[in-house]
Parts: sequence; structure tokens; C-alpha cells
Amino acid sequence: MRMRLGVCYYPEHWPESMWKDDARRMKALGIEQVRIAEFAWSRIEPSPGEYDWGWLDRAIDVLGDAGLQVVMCTPTATPPKWLIDRHPDILPVGADGRPRAFGSRRHYDFSSPSYFEASRKICEAVAERYGKHPAVAYWQTDNEFGCHNTVVSYSPAAVARFRLWLKERYQNIDALNRAWGTVFWSMEYRSFDEIDAPIATVTEAHPSHRLDYRRFASDEVARYNRMQVEIIRAHSPGRPVAHNFMQLFTEFDHYKVARDLDVATWDSYPLGALEEQWYAPEIKAKFLRTGHPDFASFNHDVYRGMSKLPFWVMEQQPGPVNWAHWNPAPLPGMVRLWSWEAFAHGAGCVSYFRWRQAPFAQEQMHAGLNTPDNRLDIGGSEAEQVAHEIARVSAADADANANVRSKVALIYDYEAKWLFEIHPQGADFHYPRFAFEYYSALRSLGFDVDVIPADAPLDGYAMIVVPPLPVVPGDFAVRLAASGAQIVLGPRTGSKTPDLQIPANLPPGALASLLPIRVWRVESMRPNVTEPVQVNGASDGLREGQARHWRDLIDAADERSFGVRARFADGHPAYVQHGSVHYFASLFDDRLTESLFARIATEAGLTPTPLGDSVRISRRGKLTYVFNYTNARHVIEGVDASRFVIGAHEVEPQGVAAYRTESTE
Amino acid sequence: MRMRLGVCYYPEHWPESMWKDDARRMKALGIEQVRIAEFAWSRIEPSPGEYDWGWLDRAIDVLGDAGLQVVMCTPTATPPKWLIDRHPDILPVGADGRPRAFGSRRHYDFSSPSYFEASRKICEAVAERYGKHPAVAYWQTDNEFGCHNTVVSYSPAAVARFRLWLKERYQNIDALNRAWGTVFWSMEYRSFDEIDAPIATVTEAHPSHRLDYRRFASDEVARYNRMQVEIIRAHSPGRPVAHNFMQLFTEFDHYKVARDLDVATWDSYPLGALEEQWYAPEIKAKFLRTGHPDFASFNHDVYRGMSKLPFWVMEQQPGPVNWAHWNPAPLPGMVRLWSWEAFAHGAGCVSYFRWRQAPFAQEQMHAGLNTPDNRLDIGGSEAEQVAHEIARVSAADADANANVRSKVALIYDYEAKWLFEIHPQGADFHYPRFAFEYYSALRSLGFDVDVIPADAPLDGYAMIVVPPLPVVPGDFAVRLAASGAQIVLGPRTGSKTPDLQIPANLPPGALASLLPIRVWRVESMRPNVTEPVQVNGASDGLREGQARHWRDLIDAADERSFGVRARFADGHPAYVQHGSVHYFASLFDDRLTESLFARIATEAGLTPTPLGDSVRISRRGKLTYVFNYTNARHVIEGVDASRFVIGAHEVEPQGVAAYRTESTE
Amino acid sequence: MRMRLGVCYYPEHWPESMWKDDARRMKALGIEQVRIAEFAWSRIEPSPGEYDWGWLDRAIDVLGDAGLQVVMCTPTATPPKWLIDRHPDILPVGADGRPRAFGSRRHYDFSSPSYFEASRKICEAVAERYGKHPAVAYWQTDNEFGCHNTVVSYSPAAVARFRLWLKERYQNIDALNRAWGTVFWSMEYRSFDEIDAPIATVTEAHPSHRLDYRRFASDEVARYNRMQVEIIRAHSPGRPVAHNFMQLFTEFDHYKVARDLDVATWDSYPLGALEEQWYAPEIKAKFLRTGHPDFASFNHDVYRGMSKLPFWVMEQQPGPVNWAHWNPAPLPGMVRLWSWEAFAHGAGCVSYFRWRQAPFAQEQMHAGLNTPDNRLDIGGSEAEQVAHEIARVSAADADANANVRSKVALIYDYEAKWLFEIHPQGADFHYPRFAFEYYSALRSLGFDVDVIPADAPLDGYAMIVVPPLPVVPGDFAVRLAASGAQIVLGPRTGSKTPDLQIPANLPPGALASLLPIRVWRVESMRPNVTEPVQVNGASDGLREGQARHWRDLIDAADERSFGVRARFADGHPAYVQHGSVHYFASLFDDRLTESLFARIATEAGLTPTPLGDSVRISRRGKLTYVFNYTNARHVIEGVDASRFVIGAHEVEPQGVAAYRTESTE
Repeated sequence: MRMRLGVCYYPEHWPESMWKDDARRMKALGIEQVRIAEFAWSRIEPSPGEYDWGWLDRAIDVLGDAGLQVVMCTPTATPPKWLIDRHPDILPVGADGRPRAFGSRRHYDFSSPSYFEASRKICEAVAERYGKHPAVAYWQTDNEFGCHNTVVSYSPAAVARFRLWLKERYQNIDALNRAWGTVFWSMEYRSFDEIDAPIATVTEAHPSHRLDYRRFASDEVARYNRMQVEIIRAHSPGRPVAHNFMQLFTEFDHYKVARDLDVATWDSYPLGALEEQWYAPEIKAKFLRTGHPDFASFNHDVYRGMSKLPFWVMEQQPGPVNWAHWNPAPLPGMVRLWSWEAFAHGAGCVSYFRWRQAPFAQEQMHAGLNTPDNRLDIGGSEAEQVAHEIARVSAADADANANVRSKVALIYDYEAKWLFEIHPQGADFHYPRFAFEYYSALRSLGFDVDVIPADAPLDGYAMIVVPPLPVVPGDFAVRLAASGAQIVLGPRTGSKTPDLQIPANLPPGALASLLPIRVWRVESMRPNVTEPVQVNGASDGLREGQARHWRDLIDAADERSFGVRARFADGHPAYVQHGSVHYFASLFDDRLTESLFARIATEAGLTPTPLGDSVRISRRGKLTYVFNYTNARHVIEGVDASRFVIGAHEVEPQGVAAYRTESTE
Repeated sequence: MRMRLGVCYYPEHWPESMWKDDARRMKALGIEQVRIAEFAWSRIEPSPGEYDWGWLDRAIDVLGDAGLQVVMCTPTATPPKWLIDRHPDILPVGADGRPRAFGSRRHYDFSSPSYFEASRKICEAVAERYGKHPAVAYWQTDNEFGCHNTVVSYSPAAVARFRLWLKERYQNIDALNRAWGTVFWSMEYRSFDEIDAPIATVTEAHPSHRLDYRRFASDEVARYNRMQVEIIRAHSPGRPVAHNFMQLFTEFDHYKVARDLDVATWDSYPLGALEEQWYAPEIKAKFLRTGHPDFASFNHDVYRGMSKLPFWVMEQQPGPVNWAHWNPAPLPGMVRLWSWEAFAHGAGCVSYFRWRQAPFAQEQMHAGLNTPDNRLDIGGSEAEQVAHEIARVSAADADANANVRSKVALIYDYEAKWLFEIHPQGADFHYPRFAFEYYSALRSLGFDVDVIPADAPLDGYAMIVVPPLPVVPGDFAVRLAASGAQIVLGPRTGSKTPDLQIPANLPPGALASLLPIRVWRVESMRPNVTEPVQVNGASDGLREGQARHWRDLIDAADERSFGVRARFADGHPAYVQHGSVHYFASLFDDRLTESLFARIATEAGLTPTPLGDSVRISRRGKLTYVFNYTNARHVIEGVDASRFVIGAHEVEPQGVAAYRTESTE
Repeated sequence: MRMRLGVCYYPEHWPESMWKDDARRMKALGIEQVRIAEFAWSRIEPSPGEYDWGWLDRAIDVLGDAGLQVVMCTPTATPPKWLIDRHPDILPVGADGRPRAFGSRRHYDFSSPSYFEASRKICEAVAERYGKHPAVAYWQTDNEFGCHNTVVSYSPAAVARFRLWLKERYQNIDALNRAWGTVFWSMEYRSFDEIDAPIATVTEAHPSHRLDYRRFASDEVARYNRMQVEIIRAHSPGRPVAHNFMQLFTEFDHYKVARDLDVATWDSYPLGALEEQWYAPEIKAKFLRTGHPDFASFNHDVYRGMSKLPFWVMEQQPGPVNWAHWNPAPLPGMVRLWSWEAFAHGAGCVSYFRWRQAPFAQEQMHAGLNTPDNRLDIGGSEAEQVAHEIARVSAADADANANVRSKVALIYDYEAKWLFEIHPQGADFHYPRFAFEYYSALRSLGFDVDVIPADAPLDGYAMIVVPPLPVVPGDFAVRLAASGAQIVLGPRTGSKTPDLQIPANLPPGALASLLPIRVWRVESMRPNVTEPVQVNGASDGLREGQARHWRDLIDAADERSFGVRARFADGHPAYVQHGSVHYFASLFDDRLTESLFARIATEAGLTPTPLGDSVRISRRGKLTYVFNYTNARHVIEGVDASRFVIGAHEVEPQGVAAYRTESTE
């Protein structure tokens, strides 16, 4: 599969006189794909039913004539004012019971019948007009589902559809009452029509009710996307359909939406993400202008796993952005580094957002490849460099970004995030953070990782790591056992039934067949409390560490049935092993997690390569890539100079190297 | 009075097939009382007017047949969905003007006429059916009034009743205008009907208006509870009526509600309370798995004071709970320790919440005496141990939990909390915290303390401590003087009239006859500012300390009239004495408060026993109890081995000892 | 111009029997002016259309008979309950879409037609009755426009008037769409009637939309004030009209309102302001009982600049206040110091708030010159001392508070604050703080400073300092150049067009003619990140410092065109100079800012007098004043003893000295 560069372009933002030169310069820079029109509804249909195709026809022609491929979008992320005024029920309703207003974007309710119909109409119109245009090579549905927390709405339309969804799921109200356990606090319902949205309650609403509402809202996104995909496929056969996911917005199940797509893409903003996410202030300062070394990689691995064709980065940060609390500039070299990082993880395309910084409106402080006065910015120069390097890499390995299975898999689950948000038991039990910490520990040991859902095939992996996964698929124990891999289970795994109840046999519930333990008690711990952990006979690693956030207490009565590999200071098992299954009863500090993963990987026949926290290695196809996030030169040892395709032994700060991997395997 | 153990049980949560065995095991464990039905309305009356008594009849019979006494509850804390749908005006309205919703509990407005009527009906039905059942020995009204901040509602119904309440209080609108001082900012009213709830104002609403609204809301709770008590008494004569108060929820005057009850009970969750209350993070870490050594004691002493029969712990934490931000597990021994602490403070019953952890709904992570898979948990074993020890203690002292007056009294007032919340003058002026700090200082000196309202009899006390009490009863000065006790007044005492005005003679207002000072100026201090305090001639204690939060500046012109025992660094008096009255012009650091209390206690003829912050002593009946909250063994000295009834000289961490007190008095 | 003392007095709060003695004591204390009636609407018009003038006639007569001048107020800050009940549309609507309620003050919407009409009526009535009363010497419109954030309302009435305002500004909707850039995100409008208030949007509303809404709301205040001024002038010719501005509330353009007034006055509360504003906790502790040494001065200089007659302090803090989070007491001497500081900056009158502390309502904890029990408080004694000192100073300089232009000007702009709030790019980019830091650096160098708007005449200044000013007037570059002054431009200056777009030539936009740089990139930095700055050849000052919050990156390609005086550690220019124009590309730490200002001032021919952070000097008329905010005695050197008018060489902590300035100029 070829590696390509792309860019996001808004012809409607610029005088038509600039288009031709823009297209020429894109092409000259090495860009092959141009995404357009995702926010252009008010220009496509300025008044109800009056379409203005002229400008868009010409824009596509200009791009096509320059030899560029168009990624055409449906414009449904920004319904125009006249549509909202005609159908105010399009507006989503917040948890405060108030409708959101027109004036930014994503102001629509996935459950609004009016909007479903209006969306169908505009999608039909766009797909019909451009579905077979020779320049149109790909499609994108909508834009960034879920951005700005827009998945869950509490409108009457949403509640009405929720009742249908519940009826579908439970068939009769008694089943729902049993599944949820509504006898508690007299919350029993006599019919589905009595059920409201789980908001505005005096204290927390019923967790099963809340979880089902989240599942329903997620399903609504998939349904809405599917409608668009079907329209596009009908009118534009053969063109792959994509959507651009957001790493920060996980209120819907990305796996489920991706099933209806050909290409899963994501929007990569490493600096904004660092600032807005869970990282400690000192980490935010340390990686201020590079982003966290594992953040983009983690998401590459997530979306690679769910994409039928090679995944893309649909939007790549090209310079400072406007939307984080603070917006530093990437260090010189980072745009190139991020681009190569994507390809090294299997990307089919890296598309920069955006061609030129707009001087107006909400995102006027968001950099582009060009400044508003139309001079090429640093990011633009680095993109050009990447285009040249792609040629060299492609020459060295015609299939350099092929998707081949890694030896290590990490299970990642959206529902787990919702469940722990609804039912945390400890205020800082943040699922994505813990999944990321496990991922980061694996990466710091030099492993390539597949991030996959719990229902993915598990065969072929040597090591499978499961961050806290409360609800496990029915056949998960069997598939884990059949995989032959070393398996690491995080705490709280198997701790809930699908209805959000405690399993009858206590956790790990359905996994008890795999791991004969009984978690009879748990505790969450405040941030200023940790528990010492002693590792048994750890001559090959750390002898002690700290447990944080959480403790599963494992019934000591069963200690004959499993091996205790580490204990808390009060004697309770902290890490137990049963055959190839390893259970962590807490979230350990980074160094202890890394040390234990290294031991388990060795048991799995893998060889760790300790890298510290700022150098990263990725292997793909015939090449090994090295990324230097440190402030110091990194020296690669034991590689013959002739093997380098990009860079050399000495990798500068923010530098990249790629060399031919020795064919040891 | 016998000491008994109880448990909270929800037959409706479990298959009927389990009930008999549950009852048998309760009895075997030493449990005598079982509280039921407080959340069972939807099972008692599944549809409007259609009662299903069968299951409840059978449950009560099973318990009675096993020799257990039933504490029967009215189910009004959880009105069912059908009732809410019929009468949406039942829902309380928040300060945001929006009604709360069905879906958790306590979703009712104390002022709703519909709910008053519906409550009367269901109470009548339950009381009529079970009022004379031989197994029913006690009653509980509703459940945890005020939990989740549900006392104050801003509904039209509440405002309508508030106007009546105001008319009753002030008779005519001119009197109200004068009492509040509405001439300020042209807030004058021409009739009671012009008065709204004190919310949504541009800046703070009138403080007298706010205080009266809080008083009104508190009175509404008392009125509602009284209605239930009267119904129960009519149908179930001779059975004591209780309510279970919450230590955390003080939006209504617990004294006033308790006046209508036979038994004041409270729900004791020492770990959750530690996490959710004002304690500093390092204190939360230090007492993570024990709770603060004075927290449960303080509340025992509060509710003992307001209960006609010996107070109970209606719900005792048996393991980790689910509702605090973090939920650690009690250390082994703590359930026993907490139980004995209650009895040592005079409890008639300690009732554990709950028999078995429920695997579903909001509280599925709340431990019980048994795990969800029905095995006895640590708390259950410790309850059993307590049952055995009760027998030993009862043998040593037939009346071991008798309510005898202590030598030291602490005045505790609910209205003071509301007033300082409404009118703090310093953002961290938190009344319960300051009252607790005074209590804790007394306990660290080994004193037993009665916590009483300001209108309680004061005779017989050697020392009376008054935390900041802005509004004092009219006869308070006279009664304090008549008590003969050493009296300690905290800052801001006597600083307001009942209408929330500054007294005409300035603070301490009505107490000036007792203490001839004039507080002509005050200041509140931000958390990073303290003021040094120098103690005069303190050869027997600390010579200096720090003042925090607040300073009353006392007019120096009157210094001949009182003795200055300590001064701030700028010369203003920090602690003055006039005869047996001691006035603290600030909130001192813990050590200084303790040192001054020790000196004053000595003046009162009492002998302090300095204990530090983690060992506590209680004397009751013929016994002295020792509670060890430290992590080290505590050695009791000077007690003959033969005197021990529980434990021995060496008290393990989390251990309890009880020995016969020498008959020195 | 004479210096006078005044006081705020509320006859309606006290028995009529006290009035005469109050007036006598005021006069005896040296007070000449008494402000009354600004909150008395409910007493003037107790019921619709029924006026009660009697009490007010008598109050004014009592004051006039005592030889006092009355400052008469319109009572519109507190519409009475009956008016609100008749016209609920008077209530302003919050960003949450809910109307605010009656019960405090300022509960009105500047755009409400009902209130505009009701205001006109009460103003007519009051102005007609007292316009020519011999005791009435001045007028005040309303009270503290904007207090409690009451400028911006989101009512239907406000939106309707906003549409008219937009139509007036843009004439046609296409112009608006272009100016705002609504093509972004399909936010285009087809008519002005489609435009709503910029609230409740899914993510941030359009910044140009938001800025225009703020401008509109500000203009509404000016329009409302103008209506009152016109009524007063019609009925009370020759009496100057004032309004009392609030330093903390800058949601409207104070310059625009002041244009319609004769006297700009402000309400000075140095301790409350310190507590509530941006200062770091350690600064809040350091100046706890004095206020920040530059806070009152800054505001004196702001309001002096916009007042036709000498500005006043209409309300001067006399002791502790009630409204800050914590409320310490001023140190003895501070009320005198603050009073002299006002006169030293050109005040015509210092009026204390209030005569006597009220014992009731919201402000009962706000000190007055007298305590509630009517004894003279410290502030009262200090006012008396000031009155005596005024006589001495007036004897030494008959025109001691004359308004003469300073050598140094600082540009201060209200719109800049709104713009950076709406469009910060870095979460802590707080305009007033940065303007204040520049001012404070100038004051620590001993300079007197004029604070002026960007459209003020600039001639005669030797040095002009421009804190970050995003939108500059069209002729600003020309006027700056013509001034002949050394000019310091802060970062982000010239960074936006009036429509809130990036200038076509990039920042500094319209100032590029003055300063040939191109700011091609910016970055904001989180609080735990700073950037080292190296100063070139700084033998006369600091060689290095730290940049904070922000960096403008200046195009290195143009480095021939300007001099680089300091660089960031990564080589980018941090401070560049072009002729007499100095550009700071970041916000430097206090010491570096001060050092650079000292060098630039020297280039301007001025002589800095380094004072540190706690002693301040002001020169006015023939006198030099010294204010000692430290805790140590300050010694003035080189001044002959005979020159002192107030104090002497040794200035005590919280002390003031004034001496005749040598006639060197």
C-alpha cells in the first residue's frame, strides 16, 4: 500500500482567484489528497432547497486538474441557521434539560427525526452530484462524531428512541426490572413508557439505567453514520468511505461505527491532547512541544485495528492549535516526526489540517501548512521533506506500511470507559489513563502493540494485556485460553455482568474458569495514599513498588489454586499467576508495571528492549523506525550504516531514523 | 438497659427461599433486631391503591419466627414512579429553579400537599397492618431526612407555605420589614405575598430572608415527621418510634425532630465521613482505614443528648462503602471497635447496614455483613465477637450503657451552621468544623463530653464549652452564670440577634451581662495567614500559638473590666477572662486550644488525661473503655489485671479494652 | 481646585431623631459633602405613583442647615418589588437563559423598554423636586454600573436591540457575514433577524459575534446613563453630574460613559480588591492589611484621565468590608494614607463609605466611619486628621490637586479585556493584570503616570507604554510616531482587526508602518513553563530574565530592519527596537520588565528613582508625596526639613509625607 500525504482545504474560505495556485503548490509539495466541504452546507444550500453547486464544481475541477484526489465530505456537522429555525428540535438537549443553540458546530441531536431526514437529503444531493466525479476518490461522513461531547442528548426525541431501544433489548419490562435491579429504592417500572433519561435525580441515577443510556446514545451514532454510508455507497460505488474519529471523544463505540466504514481515520493533535488530558503538570511541561511519546502511537494502533483499509491520520497538527487551555508550538522537526510515526504504525495517508491558517472565526489561531499571509510555514516545509522521504522508504520497502499482526495485543474497550465513569467507586478511576499506562509500559520495553477490542481474534499473540475490563464477552475466557499467549489481566476485570451487576460468583466472574480466584472485597484509594508492594523472588527486576488507586482483595482461602507473585504490605496478594494468566490486583507505579511486563514478556518468549520514556522504536514491514523525543542526541548501536533509509546512527532531538531490520525472524 | 445488635435487611432484594436461612444465621450471630421495608413502597403498592401485603407478611413472620424483633419503617423515602407521574408537584425544586427527577431516592418536597397526603395514606396503611404485629417492636419514620441535601426546596408549594410561616412569625409585614432591615437596597415588601424564595438574585440575597427560609425548611421536616409519628402512635401504641439521622446532613434542626421521637438514631459511616468532610488530606490519609478517632464519638454524644430512650446506631458501616469519593476498607477490628465505641457512649443498639451486599443498583459496592455470594465477611465475624463480649460486659455491669451526665458539656447548634453558611464574612468559617475541633481537644484530654443544645439544662456541669454561637437564647447568660461551671465562649458568640442583625450594644450582645467586653471590629483571615498569640504567664502550658480564620477585636477601653490571658502580636486581646467566663477571640491552633482547655478544666476542678490524637478513653457506668486508633500497641498502666472485662493491658492497634473503673467518685 | 472630604449617608436607615446630630458631627469632622438616596426608591415611591417626599425633604434640609452639600443620586440601582412584579421583563437574563430575581440590587436589564421608561419617570420626579434645592450641589446617576456583572443580559429585549445595533453597524447582512467570517462552520446569516445571543452553543460561539455582543451591551449602559444625565441637566442646571465606577467591573467602556459626565468617580476598596483580584496568595498575604501599593493609584490615574472636573473617590474603604472572600481590617493609618494617595493623584473629593455601619441586611459587616453603636471608629479619626492636613497642604499650594500631564503615559483599553476574555489562546491571558504589571513597574521606578485611552492625544509624553492592545485605532501608528516619545508595545499589540480577524499582513497589523516586524507564529505557555530571556549588552541592567504566558515569534528574515535587544533561549527575538519603538514579544518577569523600562525611560530623557515594591512617590502641583507601605520606617534623604508640609524625613510604616518639590523644572 502506498504512503500518501493529504491536506484539508476550504475553498469557500478564500477568493476563487487563489485556488489554482493553491492546488499547484499542494501538488508541488508532494500532497496527493485534498479533503473538502465538510463544513460547507450554508454554501451548498444557502436557502432551503436552493443548491449552489457552481463554486464547488469549480473547486473540485481545479483540484482534479492539478492531479489531486478529492476526499469529499458530507456537510452534516454544521447544519445552517435556516434549517435550525425551521426545525428547532434538531438541537440537542444537555443534562441541564436545556437545548443547545446554533452558533458553533455539531448542534444536532442524533435522535432527531427532522435531522435524520434533513441529513439524508443533503447527503443524497452531494453524493448524487459528486459520486462519480473522476477527482473524487474517497468520502468522509460528517466530521468528528462526538466532538465537544455531542453524543448524548436528553431531548424528548432521544428519550422516545431510548424506550424503543430498551424494548428491543429487554422485550418486556419485568426483564428490565430484573436486569437493572430496580427493586432497590422502589425504582420499578410498570412499562417502558415510564422510563425517562437518567438525569436531574436527587442523587446518582441507577447505574444500569445510565449505562444503557450511554449504549443507546452510542448506537444512535452508528445508525446515523450507517445511513450516510449507505447513501454514499449507492451513489459512489468503489470509493472508500471514511470517518475521522477523535482520540479525545469516546462517548460512542468507535469499533461499532468503524464496522460500517472502509477506512478508519483519526485526527492527531499531540500537543493539544497532552494539555487537555490526564497527564500531570510536570509531564505536560516535559513534553510541552513534542507531545507524549506514546499518545499518537496509541491512537495509531487503536485505529489501525478497526480499519479495513490502512488507517489514516485525517488531520495532522501542523503547528500551534487554538483549542487547548495553552497552545505551545511544536519544536522544529515534530511535524515530520509525527508524520513518520503514523506511517511506521501502518498509516495509508497523513493529511495535514489545514492548508492555510484562516484569519477569521473560532479557529483563526490554528496553524496551517501556510500562514494566513500565504507563506509556507515550518509544518509545510516538513511535509515536503516527508514527501521526499516517502519515496526513499517506498523504494526500500514497497509495502512499508503493511498491516501485519504484532506479537503483543492490548485490549481496549469503550464501554469500559462509560461504565467506570458511571460507577467509579474511586473518583480518579479513569479507564483511558490506565489503558494508556499499560500501553506505555509495553512501548517503553520496545514492543509493537496491536490495540484490539475484546471480541477480536486472539490467536497468534504471544502476550495479551487486558486493562481493567469490567464486562467481558461470554467466550472471552475460552478465547484467551485458546490463544496460547501469556495473559495479563488488570484489576476489576470481569467485575460486572453486562447488566452492571456483580457476578454471582464475585469477580472475576466469567473469567473464574481461567483464573481460580475470588475477589471478595475492593478498595479505592485517594491520590495521597499508596500501598507498598513486595515482589517475590524478583532477582530479575524490581523487588518493590507502589500500588495506587485501587486494590482487589483476593480470597486467601484459595491460595493453593494460584501462585502469589507479589504481595501488598498487609499480606494480601497483589499479583497472582495461574498458568499463563497473570492478574494484577492494583494499578502499580510505572516502573513496577514495566518490570513485571518485562518478566511476563520473557515468559512469553519475547525480548524486551528497555528504552526509557522518550525514545521509541517501531518495526513495520522491512524497516525499523527510531523516534527521538528527548532533548539529547540518541545513538543507535549495532546497525550497519548501509542499512539506514532515513537518518543515521545519531538521531538528533526530534529526529527520526529508519533502517532495514535484520531478517532474524 | 440492654445492649443489642441489629441489622438492616431487604427481603424484597432476595429470593424468598433465602429468607429462612438468613433469619437463622442472624439469630445465630447474636443479632436481635432487624430493620426492614424503608425502600419497599413499589412492592407494597405496585400500582395506585393496589397493595401487595403477602410477601411482607411472610417476611415479618419468618423474622419473628426466628426470634428476631422487627424495626418497621414507613417507605416514604422512595415514592414510586406511578405516584410521581400522577403528581409531578411532589418533586422538589432546586436552587436552579428546576424540579429534580425520579430515579434515585428522596425525590419529594416536604411542602408538597400531594405528597403530604400520599405519605399519610401509605403510613396509615403500613401502620394499620403491622402496628400490632407481635414481631414489630420499633418503628422508623422515613429514612435519613435531609440526605443528599433534600431539605430545602424552591417549589411554588414551598414558597406558598413559606409565606404562611412568615405571617405566623411576624404577624404583619411591617414587623418583617423592620426585623430584616429591608429598607436597605429598597427591598421592602408591601405584603407577605410579595415574598419569594431567596434565590436567583443578582448578588447575595438578604441574609435574614435566607436564614428564615432555612428555618422554615427545617420546620417543614419536623412537621412532616410529626405527621408520621402520630399515625404510627395511633396504630401501634407502645412501640418506640425512631428516625435515623445523618451526621453529614444538618439542613434541618435535629433537636426539633427528635422531640417528637422516642429514639434518636444515627447512621455511622466513619470512613466515608472522613473522606467527605473538612479534614486535611494528610488527616484523611492518616486515619484512612479507621476514621477520625473523634468523629463517631462526637455524633454518639450529639444523638445521646437528644434521645429519650438510649440512642442507637441504626446503620453501622460494616466494610467499604460506595458513596465517598474514595472508599477504602476498614482495618480488621474496626467494626468491633466502632461497635464498642457506640456502647461506651451509651448506645442501646448497634445495627449494621446491611445483612448482605446487594449485587445490583446504586449501592452494589456497599459492603454488608455478608458478601453477595453469601459468605460471612469480616464485619460479620466482628459483629459476632461483639455479641459475645456484650454478654461479658452486661455481666460486669447490668446497666453498662446508662445515660449519666458528663462533667463537660459542649453546646452544638444547627442554626449556627446555617447562619455562618449564609453570612460567613470569611469563606472558610465552617461551624461544624470548629465545634468538632473544640470537642476533639476535650477528648484528647480524656474528658467525657455531653453535646447539648443551647436551651438544655446546664446545671451539674463543671465546664461548658460554647463553639461560635451567633444567636444565643434570651436566658442563656443567666443560665450559664447559674451553672457554676467554667465557661469557654468561642469567637462570634452573641454576635447576632435572632433576626440576624448586629446587637445594639455590639457583640457579645445578650452575653455582655456575663462578660463585659465590646467587640468593636472583626476580621477574617485567608488560609495562608495566621496571627501569633502570646499567652500570659503560661508556666503550665504553651506560651504561644497561632490564631487562624478569625479575630474579634475587643475594645481596649474596657480592659480594667476583664483579665487578658493572651494577646495577639499587635496587642489586641486574644483570650480574656472575667470570673469563670473565658472568651477566645479567635480560633487557635489545635495545640493551643488543648493547652488552654487543660488549664480551664483544672480551674474547674477536673483532671485532664492527655492522650494525644489517636487513643481515646470513655467512661460509662462502672466501666472505662480504651480505644486504640494508632498503629502501635497501647499499654494501659495502673490497672489491675482482674479489672479487665474486655481485653487486657496491652491494647493492639484497632483494639478495645474495658475495665472496671475504680470507685474514686 | 479645593480638596474636600465627603461621606455616604442613608437617613432612611436611622431614626429621624439621629439626623441632626449626625450632620453636626460630620461637619465637625471636616466633611463637606454628603451623598444620599441612591438606594431609596422604595421610600421615595412606596407604591406605584405614590411619592413620599416628606422624609427626604427633611433629610436634605437637616444636611443643608448644617452647612453640608448634598450629592443627590437617582435611585435606579434598586427598583422596588412592586415595579418588578408589574414588569417582570425588567429582570436581566443570565447566560443560562434564566431571569435573575428581585432580592438584592441591580436586578434590571439595560435593554428593557419597561425599565428605561420607569427610570425616566423616577429620575424626572427626583430631578424636578431637588434639581434647584440650594443644598444639592452634585448629582450621581444610578450606582456602580456593572457591579455584580450586570452589564450583559441575554433577554429577548437585549437580543432585539442587539439586532438593531448590528444593522446600524453593518448596514447589510453580507457585510456582517464578511466581517465576522461566518462562512467558517456554515454560520452564515440571511438576515439580521436570524442572529441570536452568542450563548448555549455546543462549543465556543463565534468570537466576532461575542465581541460585538459585548460592545453592544457596553453601549447600552452609555445610552441608559445618557438618558439620566439629560434629565438631570434639564432640571438641575449648573450642578455637575457624576457616576461612581467600580474598579472591578469593566464589562462596559468606562471612557464612553464618562464622556457624558462632568465628574468621573470611583469606589476604592483596596483590601477587598487585593483579595478578589489576580494577585498570588503570597502577595495577598504580604499586603493583607494595606492593599497593593499600586492598586488605588492605578485607578486614580485611570479615572483622572476620563474626568472633566477633578475625579473623586466616591466611596473610600473606611475599615473592614463584607464582600471579599476574606475581610481583614486595614492597619491603623491606612485610611489616612489612602485619602492622601487620592489627593496626590489629583482627586477633588474623597468620600467615605459610609457614615455609620448598618446593623442589618447584606452589608452589616461593612465598616463605616462610626460603629453601629455610634462611636467614632479608627477610620473616622483618620478622616478628621486628613481634614486638618488638607488645610495645611492647601495653604502650601492653593492648587495642590491640579490635573497636569505626566511625562509617562500608559494606554488602557476596555475592549482589549473583552477580546482577550473571548479569545485568549492561553487560559491565563488576563489583560488587566498585564496592564497593571506595566503600570506597577513604572511606579516602582518613581514615575507619575497618566492612564489614557488609545484615542487620547499623545503629544507631550516622553514615554508611552502600550500593554497588549489587540485592536489599535486607525491613526494610532501616525499619532505614536508624531508624539516623539519612546514607545513600548506589549505582545499581541496590533494582532487583530476591529472585526476580530488576523490582519492581512499579520501582527502588528496597522502598526507595521511604525515597526517593520512580522509576527508569524505565537504560543501560549502553561503556568509551570517559562522561557529564559537573554538581554544583549545589558551592562546597565539585568542580563537575563524569564518570559511568561506568551511568545510572539518574530520573522527572523526581517532582522536587518530592526535591532534585537533580547532573545529567547532558542534564538527568537524577545525584545526588538526600531528607532524609538520598543516591542516586547512576551510578558517578562517583574524585575526584567522594570529593568527594561528603566533603560527605555533613560533613552526618553527621564530619570528613574528605583523604589522597590512598597514605597511610592507621587508629585502633584508644588508637592511631592511619599507613601510607606512597608513595615519599616522609610527615610527620605536630601530634603530640607523646612520643606515638609505633612510628616518629616522619617516616614513611619503606613505613614505619609509631603514636601515642597524643588523647582528643578
